[in-house]
Amino acid sequence: MDYLSDERKKSDFDVEAMKVAWAGSIQEFQLSDRMAKLVANDPVFEKFTRPMLGRKELLKNTLRKSAHAWKLIIDLRLSEEEAKWLRLYVDEPAYTDLHWGMFIPAIEGQGTEEQKKKWLPLAKKMQIIGCYAQTELGHGSNVQGLETTATFDTRTDEFIMHSPTLTSSKWWPGGLGKLSTHAVVYARLIVGGQFHGVHGFIVQLRSLEDHSPLPGITVGDIGLKFGNGAYNTMDNGVLRFDHVRIPRNQMLMRVSQVTKEGKIMQSDVPRQLIYGTMVYVRQTIVADASKALSRAVCIATRYSAVRRQFGSRDGGPETQVIDYKTQQSRLFPLLASAYAFRFVSEWLKSLYLDVKQRLEANEFSTLPEAHACTAGLKSLTTTATADGIEECRKLCGGHGYLVSSGLPELFAVYIPACTYEGDNVVLMLQVARFLVKTVSELGHKKPVGTTAYMGRVASLMQKNSAVQTAEGWLNPGAVVEAFESRAARMAVRCAQELAKFGNPEEGFAELAVDLVEVAVSHCQLIVVTKFFEKLQQDIPGKGVKESLEVLCYVYALFLLHKHQGDFLATGYLTPKQASLANAQLRTLYSKVRPNAIALVDSFSYTDHYLGSILGRYDGNVYPKLYEAAWEDPLNDSDVIDGFHQYVQPILKQRLHSAKL
Amino acid sequence: MDYLSDERKKSDFDVEAMKVAWAGSIQEFQLSDRMAKLVANDPVFEKFTRPMLGRKELLKNTLRKSAHAWKLIIDLRLSEEEAKWLRLYVDEPAYTDLHWGMFIPAIEGQGTEEQKKKWLPLAKKMQIIGCYAQTELGHGSNVQGLETTATFDTRTDEFIMHSPTLTSSKWWPGGLGKLSTHAVVYARLIVGGQFHGVHGFIVQLRSLEDHSPLPGITVGDIGLKFGNGAYNTMDNGVLRFDHVRIPRNQMLMRVSQVTKEGKIMQSDVPRQLIYGTMVYVRQTIVADASKALSRAVCIATRYSAVRRQFGSRDGGPETQVIDYKTQQSRLFPLLASAYAFRFVSEWLKSLYLDVKQRLEANEFSTLPEAHACTAGLKSLTTTATADGIEECRKLCGGHGYLVSSGLPELFAVYIPACTYEGDNVVLMLQVARFLVKTVSELGHKKPVGTTAYMGRVASLMQKNSAVQTAEGWLNPGAVVEAFESRAARMAVRCAQELAKFGNPEEGFAELAVDLVEVAVSHCQLIVVTKFFEKLQQDIPGKGVKESLEVLCYVYALFLLHKHQGDFLATGYLTPKQASLANAQLRTLYSKVRPNAIALVDSFSYTDHYLGSILGRYDGNVYPKLYEAAWEDPLNDSDVIDGFHQYVQPILKQRLHSAKL
Repeated sequence: MDYLSDERKKSDFDVEAMKVAWAGSIQEFQLSDRMAKLVANDPVFEKFTRPMLGRKELLKNTLRKSAHAWKLIIDLRLSEEEAKWLRLYVDEPAYTDLHWGMFIPAIEGQGTEEQKKKWLPLAKKMQIIGCYAQTELGHGSNVQGLETTATFDTRTDEFIMHSPTLTSSKWWPGGLGKLSTHAVVYARLIVGGQFHGVHGFIVQLRSLEDHSPLPGITVGDIGLKFGNGAYNTMDNGVLRFDHVRIPRNQMLMRVSQVTKEGKIMQSDVPRQLIYGTMVYVRQTIVADASKALSRAVCIATRYSAVRRQFGSRDGGPETQVIDYKTQQSRLFPLLASAYAFRFVSEWLKSLYLDVKQRLEANEFSTLPEAHACTAGLKSLTTTATADGIEECRKLCGGHGYLVSSGLPELFAVYIPACTYEGDNVVLMLQVARFLVKTVSELGHKKPVGTTAYMGRVASLMQKNSAVQTAEGWLNPGAVVEAFESRAARMAVRCAQELAKFGNPEEGFAELAVDLVEVAVSHCQLIVVTKFFEKLQQDIPGKGVKESLEVLCYVYALFLLHKHQGDFLATGYLTPKQASLANAQLRTLYSKVRPNAIALVDSFSYTDHYLGSILGRYDGNVYPKLYEAAWEDPLNDSDVIDGFHQYVQPILKQRLHSAKL
Repeated sequence: MDYLSDERKKSDFDVEAMKVAWAGSIQEFQLSDRMAKLVANDPVFEKFTRPMLGRKELLKNTLRKSAHAWKLIIDLRLSEEEAKWLRLYVDEPAYTDLHWGMFIPAIEGQGTEEQKKKWLPLAKKMQIIGCYAQTELGHGSNVQGLETTATFDTRTDEFIMHSPTLTSSKWWPGGLGKLSTHAVVYARLIVGGQFHGVHGFIVQLRSLEDHSPLPGITVGDIGLKFGNGAYNTMDNGVLRFDHVRIPRNQMLMRVSQVTKEGKIMQSDVPRQLIYGTMVYVRQTIVADASKALSRAVCIATRYSAVRRQFGSRDGGPETQVIDYKTQQSRLFPLLASAYAFRFVSEWLKSLYLDVKQRLEANEFSTLPEAHACTAGLKSLTTTATADGIEECRKLCGGHGYLVSSGLPELFAVYIPACTYEGDNVVLMLQVARFLVKTVSELGHKKPVGTTAYMGRVASLMQKNSAVQTAEGWLNPGAVVEAFESRAARMAVRCAQELAKFGNPEEGFAELAVDLVEVAVSHCQLIVVTKFFEKLQQDIPGKGVKESLEVLCYVYALFLLHKHQGDFLATGYLTPKQASLANAQLRTLYSKVRPNAIALVDSFSYTDHYLGSILGRYDGNVYPKLYEAAWEDPLNDSDVIDGFHQYVQPILKQRLHSAKL
């Protein structure tokens, strides 16, 4: 029985074609679909009971799933791409994530050919398990502030790894605490008493025989994290070294080398490669944002169609909450954002491939722009997604607070994305710095890529919006120009303010908040522009492009309303024009409404992956919530453990003699 | 060793006097302080291990604490006021909360004298345990939509309590699942086949002998909720009736009565009393908001002073993150909000006492305004607090994600406040409806209380801001007028838009989003105004009032900047004036900075109550984080349970023969 079938009939576009548009291609769709179903149909990957497990059981359960997944990968001879999708759909942070996602790439990126030949086969067969040990108890974003030392001992041709202070303890690395046998450890290289920068070192942590920590190594789990299951399935770790010796050839030496004699050599490998890796990692984070947000939106949208509240006439059923404008105005912009982030991540992927090709040809000119743009989009999309998941939870009313809604876990497991791989505020400041530089160089350097609009800054500073009706806003040129004008004017104004400071760094510190706002306006422009560019492409399927157009305008006009202060303050819009945009937005919500369920069905998520009773495909929410309640351990018996000891004495007025 | 002593020396006001200002009076301060210390020094109330417990153990632990607290209350002959503070500092949702907070007040408010005489002594001695069973699986905010029935049977002089559908199952009531022996159940009264509204009934659920559920009653816990401990210490419950009979005199009959013959009678007790209760409950929620937000702010502020990142010069220590403007611009407005909410809750309490007096004299004229204002402030402050706690967590960087930071638990336990006692959006729509009505009646009815400014609407629509310098914003008149103008203009404009609709309800539905914005602007005005009014009072202590003045301007100008779109769109401010406000805000942050630690010390929270390693009074964060890590059960052994079964076979390439 499909309780949402009426909703599905309302939509006016081809859902199967939209699934392909969302996935990127028919091949991507099929691949993802195959892996999703493989996981969903395998009882080992069941995840409903996860939040009820104690920490030890929880981790053990994850170990079992990881082993089972690895067995499937081997038995079914899955490709690396297929394995990646499989792990994604298992949907549980595990030590293997960091092994594949950070340890191996670190060796691939920073190891010499010899090192790769030695370590990669071991790692890729999982004969060793590795993690990425960078952050320390007292040091996060600032890599140059790390305290762990790697001191070269010429006598023995070894590095001595050491944790000189408590705050130098490695802290946070996933997989470090209980599972990893090896780590890439970042430490201050000391040769001949001199500091030579922070470098990566491959260090064995545990015996390959009995898994016990090696001498001189103190390693453990850092304790519970946010959420019932969430990242508690991962053994984020603490690590201290007490003068641990490793051979010289375990320093990752692709860029810098230390010779037997203690000489530091630099290879001709460009250091910019490290930015290439950052661009890669951050574009995957943007793709993950669209995935996480779309899951939350799928749950909230389906449940908003199931749930009814108020507005009953003549004893008939109450109104579906999705029909309330207040619900639509919070939900539909998030739905639109999920699509917007999906398309901008698709574009970012192509940007990364372009950068990679150029780097291989020693061409670095586009790198700063690509770096700024990826950093900014990482910040923008993860912030919006974290907030959006919680908003979706609130949109589900009280029931969103139940773990069985799936939303608390989704929130708890997602929010670290705002902090890892660059704190979101720190990243926006980097973007701002780049934008200010771009403005200051306008006279003699042509801005490229996503900053190309800055080349038209004179015109953008003068022209004001020509929109005169609500319909006038349904025009890509009008919308994009508004966002370009806002971003350009804010950047120029901030650059002028900065110029008033004698010391530029002082100005930068003082105006940091305004600079972040400038960066945000620039990044929002990128997302809006890339969505419109996507709509220029051929997107097959009845009604697909039209539905996406509506979402694109929802995304843009929602932002315009939310930040109308910027648009008005810069003088590009009049209050009347801002108000027309808001009126158009209301109309757009009505256009989204009949397609809402089909638009979330197009994500093609299995009920297993969603992990939410509220978001069930069939809308059969209440009977399943009711059933699920009885699974709680508290319901094992009618009378609860502790009643006779701690409650009966109260009821019987015998508390004075009770043993508490 | 006090690692924050330098910070404490920087402040320029009398912290002890500020503690009194925060508490409300010296008596309140002493009472609260005494109870806080009583709890903090009692090992039974230890809460560090709480998040590591499984559900059953967790609840059992709570039962123990509740019994111990009740024993203390009896042994020490604590007053009701003292008992309330004690339970607050135990800081753990428990079944007793609903017994004291909802069950007893429901009987007090809706019971007849006879009913009160029978039930209150039992309840107050805890010979019975009660809860408040209103919401159902399919029905939340809309009380009139409840499905549970109470059908009067004249033959036996009984009501038959019944759950006719699955969605009519009572769902959510705290304390219902495993502990309560009784409940006040809200049900549709059916007499002679006719529906006579929703009423409350006292129903016994469990045997007073062996605590087993009575015949016809299905009762249990609804399962896990958000967070590691949080509300999982509470047995929120599900309840179904299968034709359960209760005597007629267990209907709460203060307002409506059913006679033996099945006649419905109305007493002369004014129905407005129910709004009086709502005003009471919601003003306590506003007070709780200031408490929760101030805890989060205290943690984030102290840790921001401890934590250093970047900006080291010549190998010296890195910069304290509290010195970054980006950190200040997120943290200090929350600090100011905590104070603002504290003072507005103090005022709300006096408003409630006034309303109560008037109700007792059958004077209802101020009730609608008091009701709207409390509903709006509940919505405004709980939304800001929920978001603010998560913002504080982000402000602590990665370590905020650790449960030992205290912030994940604080968030998880707080967020239901946005949903219970009126969904925040639904409440704002009620406020908006009241404001629109106020505007429409301006010709013939003088607006009272917090809407009095509407009486000056003509002038507020015309006058524009006269501020010409950044210093010009340091003027209560200028700030309040800006907020009044914005609120009045938005309300009038929205009323005009509404008037264009033939059907007012249709207009209300279509413009709901704009109406919510109107309500928000009105509520922000109230908080700003009450803060300035507080500053008119005598506040003793060196520098106390001056520090609060700075916070008041921070709160107001932060809102002004955040919502500058409103101020500009309504034409009251020019972009230049908005920009001057923003410049003044930056200056104010610098004034807050030296007082920041002292301002959070003034909340006078014990380390026990804060429950956060990051927020420790002595700032000794890193050694304590390191120590705490080893308490995780995963660290019980060097090699983890599950390693030999699920990891060793991978490392040894023997996965094919492993039993997973």
